[in-house]
Amino acid sequence: MDTWRILLLAAALVASANTIPISQEVHEVYENGEDENPILNKGSDAKLFEGDIYVPEGRNALIDKGARWKFPIPYILGDDLDLNAKGCVHQAFEMYRLKSCIDFKPYEGERTYIKFEKRGGCFSSVGDQQTGQILSLGPGCDHKAVIEHELLHALGFYHEQSRTDRDDYVDIWLDQVTDGLQHNFNKYNDDYITDQNTPYDYESVMHYRPFSFNKNESIPTITTKIPEFYNIIGQYLDFSKMDTLRLNRMYNCSGPLTFLDQCSFEFANICGMIQSSIDDDNWIHTQSTAGHEDHTLLGQCRDAGYYMYFNTQKGKAQESALLESRTLYPKRNFQCLQFFYKMTGSPQDRLVVWTKVDDGTGTVRRMKKIHTITGASDSKWKIAHVPLEVDVKFRYAFQGVRGDPLSSTGGLFLDDISLSETRCPQAFWTIPNFPRIMETFERGATMDSPIFYSPEGYAFGVRVMPLSHYTDYTGNYTALYFFLASGQNDVAMQWPAVNRQATLIVMDQDPDIKQRMSTARSLTTDLRVENGKYLWDNPSKVGTYDPSCTCYKGPAWGWRNMVKHFDLRRRSYLKNDDLIIFINFEDISSMIKTEVPIKPAE
Amino acid sequence: MDTWRILLLAAALVASANTIPISQEVHEVYENGEDENPILNKGSDAKLFEGDIYVPEGRNALIDKGARWKFPIPYILGDDLDLNAKGCVHQAFEMYRLKSCIDFKPYEGERTYIKFEKRGGCFSSVGDQQTGQILSLGPGCDHKAVIEHELLHALGFYHEQSRTDRDDYVDIWLDQVTDGLQHNFNKYNDDYITDQNTPYDYESVMHYRPFSFNKNESIPTITTKIPEFYNIIGQYLDFSKMDTLRLNRMYNCSGPLTFLDQCSFEFANICGMIQSSIDDDNWIHTQSTAGHEDHTLLGQCRDAGYYMYFNTQKGKAQESALLESRTLYPKRNFQCLQFFYKMTGSPQDRLVVWTKVDDGTGTVRRMKKIHTITGASDSKWKIAHVPLEVDVKFRYAFQGVRGDPLSSTGGLFLDDISLSETRCPQAFWTIPNFPRIMETFERGATMDSPIFYSPEGYAFGVRVMPLSHYTDYTGNYTALYFFLASGQNDVAMQWPAVNRQATLIVMDQDPDIKQRMSTARSLTTDLRVENGKYLWDNPSKVGTYDPSCTCYKGPAWGWRNMVKHFDLRRRSYLKNDDLIIFINFEDISSMIKTEVPIKPAE
Repeated sequence: MDTWRILLLAAALVASANTIPISQEVHEVYENGEDENPILNKGSDAKLFEGDIYVPEGRNALIDKGARWKFPIPYILGDDLDLNAKGCVHQAFEMYRLKSCIDFKPYEGERTYIKFEKRGGCFSSVGDQQTGQILSLGPGCDHKAVIEHELLHALGFYHEQSRTDRDDYVDIWLDQVTDGLQHNFNKYNDDYITDQNTPYDYESVMHYRPFSFNKNESIPTITTKIPEFYNIIGQYLDFSKMDTLRLNRMYNCSGPLTFLDQCSFEFANICGMIQSSIDDDNWIHTQSTAGHEDHTLLGQCRDAGYYMYFNTQKGKAQESALLESRTLYPKRNFQCLQFFYKMTGSPQDRLVVWTKVDDGTGTVRRMKKIHTITGASDSKWKIAHVPLEVDVKFRYAFQGVRGDPLSSTGGLFLDDISLSETRCPQAFWTIPNFPRIMETFERGATMDSPIFYSPEGYAFGVRVMPLSHYTDYTGNYTALYFFLASGQNDVAMQWPAVNRQATLIVMDQDPDIKQRMSTARSLTTDLRVENGKYLWDNPSKVGTYDPSCTCYKGPAWGWRNMVKHFDLRRRSYLKNDDLIIFINFEDISSMIKTEVPIKPAE
Repeated sequence: MDTWRILLLAAALVASANTIPISQEVHEVYENGEDENPILNKGSDAKLFEGDIYVPEGRNALIDKGARWKFPIPYILGDDLDLNAKGCVHQAFEMYRLKSCIDFKPYEGERTYIKFEKRGGCFSSVGDQQTGQILSLGPGCDHKAVIEHELLHALGFYHEQSRTDRDDYVDIWLDQVTDGLQHNFNKYNDDYITDQNTPYDYESVMHYRPFSFNKNESIPTITTKIPEFYNIIGQYLDFSKMDTLRLNRMYNCSGPLTFLDQCSFEFANICGMIQSSIDDDNWIHTQSTAGHEDHTLLGQCRDAGYYMYFNTQKGKAQESALLESRTLYPKRNFQCLQFFYKMTGSPQDRLVVWTKVDDGTGTVRRMKKIHTITGASDSKWKIAHVPLEVDVKFRYAFQGVRGDPLSSTGGLFLDDISLSETRCPQAFWTIPNFPRIMETFERGATMDSPIFYSPEGYAFGVRVMPLSHYTDYTGNYTALYFFLASGQNDVAMQWPAVNRQATLIVMDQDPDIKQRMSTARSLTTDLRVENGKYLWDNPSKVGTYDPSCTCYKGPAWGWRNMVKHFDLRRRSYLKNDDLIIFINFEDISSMIKTEVPIKPAE
């Protein structure tokens, strides 16, 4: 049914040095039977072409406009799917909605649709077959980026290394390919596929990894002409910038569906944000200086970068400045406002998030206080998430309040705001100085997050193993594991906590939310029994007491190959030296029964 | 018929200091009777609404999809138009094609079309009226950006200050508006127009300027809530970044029509360019260092920026490295390759531009040497333009050749390439150290460009007056003037040189060609007589001898308000301290007769 296996880490993994946290026991979730990225099918029994492309009759090509979908695309989640895969399909849908105009809806008898089923591997046809089609999510395919990949096939994209010009960018070593699987490395002529006037993209989520279909372990079938991309091809983090561009280009998107607003304050127009006229003072558009760097370009450019600043060491206590967004028009009724802030003034200073909504007459006037942040005075940029629930036109606003000017030596800093019509993460954990931790921790040593609560009331946490797995090809990995903890609501909770999906996300801190390549993994709790106990039972019963949290912690399950150190050092995963992890623990039992019958064609 | 007037500059404008070139006589082209940007109609007799919006019957709104055009848009150039205006219409079309998917074609009996006519002002209806419509280019409307503005109306856009939320960004002083013209400052509800989820844009080419429709001279009707935009609103340089975004969003463009390729070498994939495998060495992707700054981020960021470098001080003479573009698919049969380069090696070093085209079998193989640059060793970045004429799939390539390694102390630098299917400028003039020149030149002092030749064979030049006009509101201007010169082909040329359009462009050096806001002005030569002589006759007959060029120069005509110093200091007009001017002198006599009859509706 699934491919989870337990790995009891050997004693060698227990850290000994004083400064290094003691290793906790962890358990691995294996995907697709592979150590590295879950990806393609090798010798599957399905009639597969190019690894994960299913060929029904004749080929359908990207250049063919008859293979383009109309939106929203009807879908069916077959009940043979793992419950975890069903949850991941929705995660992938949400990424499409955030980054493109591609939308999906439950099937209601349409002629053409995508039916997700569990067959022998992850595969899909290329383009809309116009007759309904299967997208298979077999064992190990329950992964956001894998489903993004398969859906890109369904939307009309081939693998990146099938491009007409691929031989300019990669070498394919056919003599190293398993006999009979050479067809997976076919390339196509430019009268059959189009590059949409975009360059070859080593970073595409549609690219094979070096060892795809190899017959000799650790001998690659693909190498890159530019050596530094050898470790990048086959990434399964998220859509690349180019993947997103091509998707939007193919479908003539005029904008992403769930993206609302974003501001990094790099320009004087501050993205149409406005200074309230009825407050006491203004937020000041301020350029980076040494010691007061903006967040957007932190670590990238000393000569540029702006943030918004509210000085709290002048004026009087309780004076405030209100910075309001432009008017926004939501399509859903929930949003997530994310921003970075810094408070260097007095502990009494406050940063208050408001919404101002349509009062019913078309005037955006009705104020509502949503969230208040106080007294975080360690002069480091921090991330914040504020869930909004608005379904009429509105503004969001940041009020800075002077707490005690006499004891303030600074003020409030604001930067890199994004607002999307998506769910905020239920919890996040920022680990400072992570580059140093990656270098100094012993292999196998772990550290645990604080305890968080899910909206239902479960207590949970994350265990990180900064230096976990190693391979010659990929180098070191950082591992992440999820555990339940005992908490204040346990008496009221359902035990074992089954059919909940735990999702761990390592955040890419790119200021543009649409370009982020955050990596996500999910597992779903079930009734499995280990050593005579339900795995996901009450931690007070099945867990171990941890004095550091004065709580019991259940077994930690996760991924020793969560993220490569090589990847962490690229892009913005370690911006400001912070590793930021988002954690969700959601009840997805409503997805157990999702399949609907297909109506016969009329 | 037109509004040209002569301004004989007073003696005060003649420079006296030794270091400052002597002022030459210049003549002004006035547009629309205004000193500053030509823009709207004041008290015109046409039935105008909101200044330059013509209202036929009922209003048509941006939000209404029935007002969207299908492409290409059929157009007619009425023969009442000034010939100069006809030329400028084509310039505006080319900007639309470079920056969007909007295309135009000569009218051939279609039901709906745009007819350009010369009426009392510059105006247009908003959106496709579905029945054919007039776009008026009256006196002073013969200006690329004005026509871009009127066409944006025709495409469905209102003025920026008509937005629902405009009161958050500008103050409208209705008491300062000429009586009876207050309706020009109407704003619209958000059920009638949409902001396309974009912020208010002070820089939009659709924004009024501060003094639009004022009744008291130098008292504004519009001021900006953010003071630094007071000098920006009403810009008539080119589309703003936001104008382009909205246009592409409204029409679901998947990409611009005439844009082919661009590379600023900021990323390791070097935009899909490839190192040839049959040469001697490679171009190296190199990061900026002090003294060897890349061109892209020059003056903006010391910590970033890359260029391509070919070392010519090692190896042997005649060794070379070939950097080839990815395969490109042209739609036209002419292209312009523009790039920045620097040569710090030996005078024998060469930078050779090649094309490699489809040999007829689908293989891109046939090489053609297009252009060679040698021995420019002053270690400053320079611009180059290479016209290509390719109509099959192709690559372009840069060959670096070592001339004499023993005498080289550097090499070849390459950065900020762009390739578009547009015409290269016929000539360009780079004026180094222009910020200093703006500060040190006396008002009215001028300097002349070298003499250039048009493809027909005319000799011409540009006169710049770094410090020309001044107003309290705009500050100082730099003026540009065009003149004919005597040249080697004069005996074979047509005199007077009538029906030629001279266009002067001040280049915005933004690395992204699609975001550039280069400013252009044009005049068209005619049979006008001044002091008993044809103005555009052979300069040997009607001009003045100039020993600096050992040539005769005809009268110089142009614009004392060509570009504001305020604007020059924004954006990238003075990148690397260079002012770069493009000059064209084109025969447009084929446009004298363009009007075709409108076929009656069936």
